[in-house]
Amino acid sequence: MKKVIKNGTIVTASDEYVADLLIEEGTIAAIGKNLPEDGAEVIDATGLYVFPGGIDPHTHLEMPFGGTVSKDDFATGTKAAAFGGTTTVIDFCLTNKGEPLQAAIDRWHAKSQDKAVIDYSFHLMIGEINDQVLEQLPSVIDDEGITSFKVFMAYKNVFQADDETLFRTLVAAKDLGSLVMVHAENGDVIEYLTKQALANGQTDPIYHAKTRPSEIEGEATGRAAQLTGLADSQLYVVHVSCAEAIEKITEARQKGIQVYGETCPQYLVLDETYLEKPDFEGAKYVWSPPLREKSHQEALWNALKAGHLQTLGSDQCSFDFVGQKDLGKGDFTKIPNGGPIIEDRVSILFSEGVKKGRISLQQFVDLTSTRAAKLFGLFPKKGTISVGADADLVLFDPTIERVISASTHHMAVDYNPFEGMNITGEPVSVLSRGEFVIREKAFVGTEGDGQYIKRQKFGTS
Amino acid sequence: MKKVIKNGTIVTASDEYVADLLIEEGTIAAIGKNLPEDGAEVIDATGLYVFPGGIDPHTHLEMPFGGTVSKDDFATGTKAAAFGGTTTVIDFCLTNKGEPLQAAIDRWHAKSQDKAVIDYSFHLMIGEINDQVLEQLPSVIDDEGITSFKVFMAYKNVFQADDETLFRTLVAAKDLGSLVMVHAENGDVIEYLTKQALANGQTDPIYHAKTRPSEIEGEATGRAAQLTGLADSQLYVVHVSCAEAIEKITEARQKGIQVYGETCPQYLVLDETYLEKPDFEGAKYVWSPPLREKSHQEALWNALKAGHLQTLGSDQCSFDFVGQKDLGKGDFTKIPNGGPIIEDRVSILFSEGVKKGRISLQQFVDLTSTRAAKLFGLFPKKGTISVGADADLVLFDPTIERVISASTHHMAVDYNPFEGMNITGEPVSVLSRGEFVIREKAFVGTEGDGQYIKRQKFGTS
Amino acid sequence: MKKVIKNGTIVTASDEYVADLLIEEGTIAAIGKNLPEDGAEVIDATGLYVFPGGIDPHTHLEMPFGGTVSKDDFATGTKAAAFGGTTTVIDFCLTNKGEPLQAAIDRWHAKSQDKAVIDYSFHLMIGEINDQVLEQLPSVIDDEGITSFKVFMAYKNVFQADDETLFRTLVAAKDLGSLVMVHAENGDVIEYLTKQALANGQTDPIYHAKTRPSEIEGEATGRAAQLTGLADSQLYVVHVSCAEAIEKITEARQKGIQVYGETCPQYLVLDETYLEKPDFEGAKYVWSPPLREKSHQEALWNALKAGHLQTLGSDQCSFDFVGQKDLGKGDFTKIPNGGPIIEDRVSILFSEGVKKGRISLQQFVDLTSTRAAKLFGLFPKKGTISVGADADLVLFDPTIERVISASTHHMAVDYNPFEGMNITGEPVSVLSRGEFVIREKAFVGTEGDGQYIKRQKFGTS
Amino acid sequence: MKKVIKNGTIVTASDEYVADLLIEEGTIAAIGKNLPEDGAEVIDATGLYVFPGGIDPHTHLEMPFGGTVSKDDFATGTKAAAFGGTTTVIDFCLTNKGEPLQAAIDRWHAKSQDKAVIDYSFHLMIGEINDQVLEQLPSVIDDEGITSFKVFMAYKNVFQADDETLFRTLVAAKDLGSLVMVHAENGDVIEYLTKQALANGQTDPIYHAKTRPSEIEGEATGRAAQLTGLADSQLYVVHVSCAEAIEKITEARQKGIQVYGETCPQYLVLDETYLEKPDFEGAKYVWSPPLREKSHQEALWNALKAGHLQTLGSDQCSFDFVGQKDLGKGDFTKIPNGGPIIEDRVSILFSEGVKKGRISLQQFVDLTSTRAAKLFGLFPKKGTISVGADADLVLFDPTIERVISASTHHMAVDYNPFEGMNITGEPVSVLSRGEFVIREKAFVGTEGDGQYIKRQKFGTS
Ligand SMILES: [Zn+2]
Ligand SMILES: [Zn+2]
Ligand SMILES: [Zn+2]
Ligand SMILES: [Zn+2]
Ligand SMILES: [Zn+2]
Ligand SMILES: [Zn+2]
Ligand SMILES: [Zn+2]
Ligand SMILES: [Zn+2]
Repeated sequence: MKKVIKNGTIVTASDEYVADLLIEEGTIAAIGKNLPEDGAEVIDATGLYVFPGGIDPHTHLEMPFGGTVSKDDFATGTKAAAFGGTTTVIDFCLTNKGEPLQAAIDRWHAKSQDKAVIDYSFHLMIGEINDQVLEQLPSVIDDEGITSFKVFMAYKNVFQADDETLFRTLVAAKDLGSLVMVHAENGDVIEYLTKQALANGQTDPIYHAKTRPSEIEGEATGRAAQLTGLADSQLYVVHVSCAEAIEKITEARQKGIQVYGETCPQYLVLDETYLEKPDFEGAKYVWSPPLREKSHQEALWNALKAGHLQTLGSDQCSFDFVGQKDLGKGDFTKIPNGGPIIEDRVSILFSEGVKKGRISLQQFVDLTSTRAAKLFGLFPKKGTISVGADADLVLFDPTIERVISASTHHMAVDYNPFEGMNITGEPVSVLSRGEFVIREKAFVGTEGDGQYIKRQKFGTS
Repeated sequence: MKKVIKNGTIVTASDEYVADLLIEEGTIAAIGKNLPEDGAEVIDATGLYVFPGGIDPHTHLEMPFGGTVSKDDFATGTKAAAFGGTTTVIDFCLTNKGEPLQAAIDRWHAKSQDKAVIDYSFHLMIGEINDQVLEQLPSVIDDEGITSFKVFMAYKNVFQADDETLFRTLVAAKDLGSLVMVHAENGDVIEYLTKQALANGQTDPIYHAKTRPSEIEGEATGRAAQLTGLADSQLYVVHVSCAEAIEKITEARQKGIQVYGETCPQYLVLDETYLEKPDFEGAKYVWSPPLREKSHQEALWNALKAGHLQTLGSDQCSFDFVGQKDLGKGDFTKIPNGGPIIEDRVSILFSEGVKKGRISLQQFVDLTSTRAAKLFGLFPKKGTISVGADADLVLFDPTIERVISASTHHMAVDYNPFEGMNITGEPVSVLSRGEFVIREKAFVGTEGDGQYIKRQKFGTS
Repeated sequence: MKKVIKNGTIVTASDEYVADLLIEEGTIAAIGKNLPEDGAEVIDATGLYVFPGGIDPHTHLEMPFGGTVSKDDFATGTKAAAFGGTTTVIDFCLTNKGEPLQAAIDRWHAKSQDKAVIDYSFHLMIGEINDQVLEQLPSVIDDEGITSFKVFMAYKNVFQADDETLFRTLVAAKDLGSLVMVHAENGDVIEYLTKQALANGQTDPIYHAKTRPSEIEGEATGRAAQLTGLADSQLYVVHVSCAEAIEKITEARQKGIQVYGETCPQYLVLDETYLEKPDFEGAKYVWSPPLREKSHQEALWNALKAGHLQTLGSDQCSFDFVGQKDLGKGDFTKIPNGGPIIEDRVSILFSEGVKKGRISLQQFVDLTSTRAAKLFGLFPKKGTISVGADADLVLFDPTIERVISASTHHMAVDYNPFEGMNITGEPVSVLSRGEFVIREKAFVGTEGDGQYIKRQKFGTS
Repeated sequence: MKKVIKNGTIVTASDEYVADLLIEEGTIAAIGKNLPEDGAEVIDATGLYVFPGGIDPHTHLEMPFGGTVSKDDFATGTKAAAFGGTTTVIDFCLTNKGEPLQAAIDRWHAKSQDKAVIDYSFHLMIGEINDQVLEQLPSVIDDEGITSFKVFMAYKNVFQADDETLFRTLVAAKDLGSLVMVHAENGDVIEYLTKQALANGQTDPIYHAKTRPSEIEGEATGRAAQLTGLADSQLYVVHVSCAEAIEKITEARQKGIQVYGETCPQYLVLDETYLEKPDFEGAKYVWSPPLREKSHQEALWNALKAGHLQTLGSDQCSFDFVGQKDLGKGDFTKIPNGGPIIEDRVSILFSEGVKKGRISLQQFVDLTSTRAAKLFGLFPKKGTISVGADADLVLFDPTIERVISASTHHMAVDYNPFEGMNITGEPVSVLSRGEFVIREKAFVGTEGDGQYIKRQKFGTS
């Protein structure tokens, strides 16, 4: 059935104007003043922003980590995402050394296909590169539409790849038309600092931060960028948290190196002092890279405004405080890394960024949706409001005031790292391919309705 | 009369899709698939790009300079602009010290109102700041809609302002909501080097370049950016030509300073060696800043791609080779500075940038149109294709191959600095507020139909 | 009469060893173990350091400033210098526009010749450059041995030169073999900020600092360095106070530009908060550039250690708190700039630098003496301990603990900015050309015994 | 027997003056004018420079490499060093994983003790760090006086250590008072590029350079410097060859990180084009890092002048062209890396640096001798001319003109990379601890007279 969304303020990465939207067969058929309503369901959006649905390029749903599994799966995770205005997620598919890549991908399909309430896709982790792995990549790209590969420069002896692997991945990616993603921290230094901290009895959550200083994120970021330049390839640095890394990315970009940077809401509004909360509460704030000294927040906001960073991911990887995070009592290295962010990612950037005058409304849309669609081969079906695009839409009331709380959020975990934070602006209704998933703040979607999306090669959209 | 542009590939600063455009009363009324054609004139745009009309933020039409006057006036200049896909120009209104600002503005209105074939607006030059000047600024902004002020850091004893004037202008601009523009070269050093060159008998055009080294553009750019940061104001650096200046702009932006940079086609594709052409032909290539060593071109392209520069202006200021440029025979300081660029600005960026894979189609639109509209208070009426926007449109055939030549261009001067350059892509038809100005490569507009536009304050669009 | 200094620990800019020194006819005749004492006066230096006498390259003795005159003249100033271990000062000779340079120099000779107790020389201020001034420079260099010229980038409408003057001075200096010195702050911005502060009723001493932010010192320093590079000349930046300026100097030096930087004790150990002292006491801490936020101190120490700054001057320019500094009550712009530092310059660097492990003993000697001698054409007669050098020597006890206080200092003013500071190490005896000026902490010299020194050209020593 | 060196121009890292030197018991007893000659052998040094003997901090004598052994051993190598004005070498002692460190050191003693004609010491290579290795380090320092450890960031699967090893070494070095040396190139990237080159049939010597681009030296240098900062330790970067590495070192030093950089004569005067010489002659110019594009030479000279690099090593590691270098015909990876430089190191810096006005005579002495003595715990016995220092002296005639040639050099190999280079200045006589090793250009020393030197801890001299 056709729908007409009336009188909303349509916002894209470049535009802002009041118009009606006509939706037919899940896509946008027309945009105009006073579009005819004949036979269409009419939704009044007067006073609301109409955004393209958010794209979260960085989630870890139902992911095994350190003997436990992240709590939000493709059901609860994508529901929470939808509540927050996100209509597509790209999740990281973990691989095991030696295992065929397809087996890992199949495992990820199995987790997701009957559960997702919004569309989704996968990135693929590269733990090692050898001739067998290289042979499998073309089918990963062509058959599965997975056109981005993740390499870890940290987590020594677990996920960490050496520089040769990173460099070969970059070279291969250039040839294959895919984008390399890195977790950029120097895992060797972390390994040493961590052992030392434990040996010194420094076991509290704050030592998670102290053993991962920002210098080594800057170092690894610069290294990855330089390797990208040498390989004439393309790089996406996930979860940039600090001034040092921004500097390296910006420098590389001015040299013509194709490097892109993502930050996350937690780095924009929280800081290292949260890890010192008493009663082990600091464990709620354990991410890698860790939260930084407050001064880095200004650098991150400046980078978003100047265009030196390009996207906002959630790095969603949620664990209960009781029963999961507390595995790390007495040993911070056993605290599962990550937190529940998927739901508030979009709202936090709107409230802290747009409302506080740090970025424009267009930049907000670009950062939360459009740019990720372009970098990851989803555009123009996803990531914008244009004729022919999927009707993945968010009706957003910029005036609602609310307080973030675990007692009201829709994620499956028992705390929220932004607990008590005042937010202005909230998604009221959310559509995925023209169908309501959230309607007037209530979930009206269906598990399994989310579709797996094969993505295009890098640079083609 | 209504118009429907059918099946064009609509491109904005963020989007690209095939759709129809409905134009009513000079504005875009609807965008959609298969829009009803009832009663409308139908224009087939199949296979063509539909771009928002170009905005040239930097022109000098009929401008007095060194005892002569730039050749293209608001008639020939705006016609040539239209041929090239530009539908709005912002011209620099020169002032004289002591004269009421309104008198200067009135002089500029007199030059333009019966001649322009496309819409236009003015920037205002600030030569000095004192209490009288400050008192006049609010009415310049409110009554005339002139919300950008230009300060020269070069042309000692002519246009050059001292740093105190620049700083006061920045402070005033912040309070008044306007954007300060600078010509950033160290005029004192140029003054000395120039005198020395002449004293040494170095009178050929190449010495124009030799006496204005890139270091002093970098120096002045950095100085202006730092003053902007101190004033917490906003700055637009015109005609950035070199790597040193880009570096300063990028650094400042990462510090959160609102600095924007414009480059021009000549700096992207020509270089210093052109000034050495025999038979005084080098004079055709005399701009300030001068053409640079070829290596700067890569820095400029990288900056456009990375977003470190934001706009493309023409710095149109045309003089005949015979009768004007040749005033400088035997003394390069007497060569009128500038050239005829207004017509080919858009095409060169398309051909050299998009076609050669250096920038995306969306960046091209942003650089030639959208960003200037936003920075200079024209958006969203100008600078984009959205419902409600002025129907300033360019139907562009990306496959046409042509050669730039003075024998075919529409500017009033006897040479073209890009003579012989192969260009791919050309505007076929151009509309201003829904009316054809260029139709199938023929001029169909009317002098005087162009309207003066009062612009909004900085930051409001 | 011959002297033998026995068993001292001789320290130079590169060495440290225990030996005897034989002094004949005012110069060092031999250095060795167990030198024969026949007929010589023997001075036991066991346990003492023997340093080359300090060279203070930056003093303003009896200098007119803002309607008053700096209190310490060549008598009290050089006595205090000697007490502090300094045996040569280079004072700034101020010129007036239009006046013959020789007249200014003669005025400075008149002030100094009968008063100085140690050797001295002059720098010459350049306020304007025109053909007449240029014609006088060779005789200034050849006849007066003044081989360094000072240009002010601040003090608008008083001392400030424009960039053309600075550039011409640099060009002339290259040709003439002299060193250009700059006071690097952007005087235009200061002018504006100062007027604004006064207009806003911000008249307390702290506004002296607030109206001269470090960014504009960095800006002016970078500008001067770039002009030096263009002129292929040589530059000495006086009183570097901030991280921004260091960065510019270091960058320029890596480009092969001959730039040298001087800092002063006050910037190393005091900070901006001193200007906020109650009861107008902040006025005691008014220097230009002003004291900075504490974080700049680390940058300065790092620069001394790394060799990114090369010398330590005092910028001695002393005024009584009562009767001089208090001219600025109610208007910070009327506070005479400067302070009494000539006496404690050497000791502070020893105590805070060497004793605290920030720099080596050799670096200390280089910074307080040797490098200034080399840069300013005094070497090897001054600035080191070598055979043939003037016996300008300091016998320094590194174990003495003392407290700086106006009640015990030898300068002619009523306060000391370092009042209460604990110092380790003190000169015990000081010789000028082999004669004691200070002996066992008592003054034993004679006014007028100090000789005026004609200096060599830049680069010849 | 006593010696008196008469009337030489004594030059140290800070001084230059004419005087006599008295030598007793192998050390300098006195320096002075007209020293008594009673009973002493008198050597006339009129018109000659007297330098402290050169210290070569970087040699590989009789070192196994890729199945062969470097040709010059401690006999021929130290003789050639002496001819060239070097009186101390510090050679790299290679270790094998698992083997006790003392076994490696004993092996190095066995090679050297009966052969060396000048004094020598060892650095120790660290290939891995574990508890056993850490336990052995104190005795290496205390018993053997080896206070510097070398870590390789390149030569994957051979010498290369991972970042954890580097970091632990830095931490250990801080605690133990030793200096960490790094070969800074990213070995992983080299590994990949090398495999690719060979796979592509790119086997000529030039591909040695092409597979080791300067970016990865810059990367590794920056990484090592940042790790040093985190460890609050001290670092010495061997054989710096490029602008990128200099930039990283300079930045780190300004942050207060104790990083020192060494370059080598080959990087100052040769460039990448030498590797393209026909008939496999390019193999003569295979060093790691490789020779660079010519533009890097200016950066290196600027860095020496500015003090951004501190020492000059030879990286002596000589192989015959016939029989050794030619092992790499058809496969550049089999070319033994290194060349014969030990003899001309000092002369090249004098001729190209001092004579061409790029550095001062004092900087020359500091770079070739004094600074290495200070950094590596040899000062003040070695590295300077001061009372009490070893009489390791070079009598140097600055006017001799000669041409470097394998036909006249004293190294044991069949070519010289500087063949045909014109050199001004040559050592005439060389003394080690007061005894002639070279006298009037003839070798007069004795194999085995060179002594092994236990060095002091870092920072104590
Ligand atoms: Zn990660
Ligand atoms: Zn993640
Ligand atoms: Zn201009
Ligand atoms: Zn212009
Ligand atoms: Zn000053
Ligand atoms: Zn001063
Ligand atoms: Zn090496
Ligand atoms: Zn080596």
